[in-house]
Amino acid sequence: MVKPAEIFEANIPRPLGELREAQAFAPSNIALSKYWGKRDAGLNLPLNSSLSISLGSWGTETTIRPSEQDTLIFNGTKMASDTAAAAKIWRFVDLFCGVGRPALAIETSNNIPTAAGLASSASGFAALTLALNAAFACNLSKPTMSMLARFGSGSATRSFWQGFVRWDAGDAPDGSDSFATPLEVDFPSFRIAILTVDSGPKSHSSTDGMTHTVRSSPLFENWPDKANADCAEIERHIRNGNFVAIGELAEANALAMHATMMAARPAVCYLKPETWSILQDLWRARQDGLVAYATMDAGPNVKLVFEESTASDVLNVFPNAQMINPFEGSSV
Amino acid sequence: MVKPAEIFEANIPRPLGELREAQAFAPSNIALSKYWGKRDAGLNLPLNSSLSISLGSWGTETTIRPSEQDTLIFNGTKMASDTAAAAKIWRFVDLFCGVGRPALAIETSNNIPTAAGLASSASGFAALTLALNAAFACNLSKPTMSMLARFGSGSATRSFWQGFVRWDAGDAPDGSDSFATPLEVDFPSFRIAILTVDSGPKSHSSTDGMTHTVRSSPLFENWPDKANADCAEIERHIRNGNFVAIGELAEANALAMHATMMAARPAVCYLKPETWSILQDLWRARQDGLVAYATMDAGPNVKLVFEESTASDVLNVFPNAQMINPFEGSSV
Repeated sequence: MVKPAEIFEANIPRPLGELREAQAFAPSNIALSKYWGKRDAGLNLPLNSSLSISLGSWGTETTIRPSEQDTLIFNGTKMASDTAAAAKIWRFVDLFCGVGRPALAIETSNNIPTAAGLASSASGFAALTLALNAAFACNLSKPTMSMLARFGSGSATRSFWQGFVRWDAGDAPDGSDSFATPLEVDFPSFRIAILTVDSGPKSHSSTDGMTHTVRSSPLFENWPDKANADCAEIERHIRNGNFVAIGELAEANALAMHATMMAARPAVCYLKPETWSILQDLWRARQDGLVAYATMDAGPNVKLVFEESTASDVLNVFPNAQMINPFEGSSV
Repeated sequence: MVKPAEIFEANIPRPLGELREAQAFAPSNIALSKYWGKRDAGLNLPLNSSLSISLGSWGTETTIRPSEQDTLIFNGTKMASDTAAAAKIWRFVDLFCGVGRPALAIETSNNIPTAAGLASSASGFAALTLALNAAFACNLSKPTMSMLARFGSGSATRSFWQGFVRWDAGDAPDGSDSFATPLEVDFPSFRIAILTVDSGPKSHSSTDGMTHTVRSSPLFENWPDKANADCAEIERHIRNGNFVAIGELAEANALAMHATMMAARPAVCYLKPETWSILQDLWRARQDGLVAYATMDAGPNVKLVFEESTASDVLNVFPNAQMINPFEGSSV
């Protein structure tokens, strides 16, 4: 069995270059076709491919500096190294740098409104990988960084590019073909809105929910194949510019993912009553002609996708929606 | 292909006896292991076996009388024969009686509080079958009546007995082995509570929801086998008097059924935000030690199962719960 450290050794030139201060930004992303289920927990390899849209200027900025001792500042606050989140970050730094690394200071901050309740691990591990690459002058390619960032967070693979990004599950046992690729399709009218239900911590981590679902849900078996098919079909609709088909499929894919959890024993329910109220309002509005679709990750918040021309109608139904233009100012 | 009329001809002695006034009662029932999905729509044959608990004195009382012309009185109100519900009832009467039947008056009423929002088709078609059997002195056995009532409503097969009842899916192409059997297990401490969310008409009939789910849900494929396994396992727990195992499995089975619908494309969601609020309250109370479990059919209401000793705790959490003692006054 391959160990994570061996993958990093094989892909990052040793010894590392001298540590210099470096800064990097990575966008957050929202999956239109979800990653749910691991085929290898040790190498964080997914059972199915997934496809996301990056959130433009919403994401994580990370700076790495030489330091007397290891320090981690998260959103302006020093984080003790014994918290689960900090331990995960330092474990990744150790993998990246190998044995005998210099002490370093990591300063990382999300410019995503906290109230949006978006997961920050995707943009966080992508920005950390980019910053480490720059700080140690490793000169890694983005596909290689995407593959390595997977060890921090699966969805981080997709946060190295703007626009639509596909993470191929791959089939190599060592995960060397499990990284993301940008579709390089411009879709300037594409819009996202975040509807926040709860920005508090989740009841279960997504990894725990995933593991429990794969192990206990009698309906999980059909998910990986269908998720792969959805991923390929959404890509086709993106390339054809067929917004309605993208939206319908993204919503169906998200609900199918949550259905696999709801059938787990005991059930895993990230969606809250307020989530269902939003969905009910959305479905009612859609019957009245609103062309907008919902997607939900391992948490209660709803993300809507729609086109620019529908933005004011979306705000009429959901006045608190936080609007995002994923293609603003960026050429894919 | 066998036609429904042939099944009735083969099972009911012709010509019918002379029509005399007759009255019959059948209890409503709640499935602890659900029926969801048909293997033959024409003969109303299920893909999986199911197991229910009957609701004691809550049910339908039906009287049949000779009449100058066909008349249907439902809960005291005359029903036009062109409504969907009335057409279904008359179609069943025609099947039961065969060609050249006399005109008859049907008076049927549910003694279930309307606010409980329970489906009445199960007790309704069972009571109708019992009343027709008595009115025409057919002298049919209960298993035969259970098999025939299936043509009115699948869950009616289970409403011919009190207590726990199992509907075997069977495998005969003509459905001759697809009828219910009582478990004949006494469980005097078993209690049910109804939590009503909405007593209004459903958005989709359960037959429509079933058909759409079987056809479009990528997660449905694993349901029939798991549902059969659940049914057998719940029966074992009933025979062992293991209440906690019954409750856990009943709740998991119901959620898995709703999960198959949630993954349908588009999704079928009978559960409303208020349903999820109740589930959230229940799960929170369970963490605090409440031993009660939920089940939901093709509608938003929640039915709780628990034991007598827990009744007051259930009322503390859910003051509006309508309590049912399914074994009251009946020896199974």
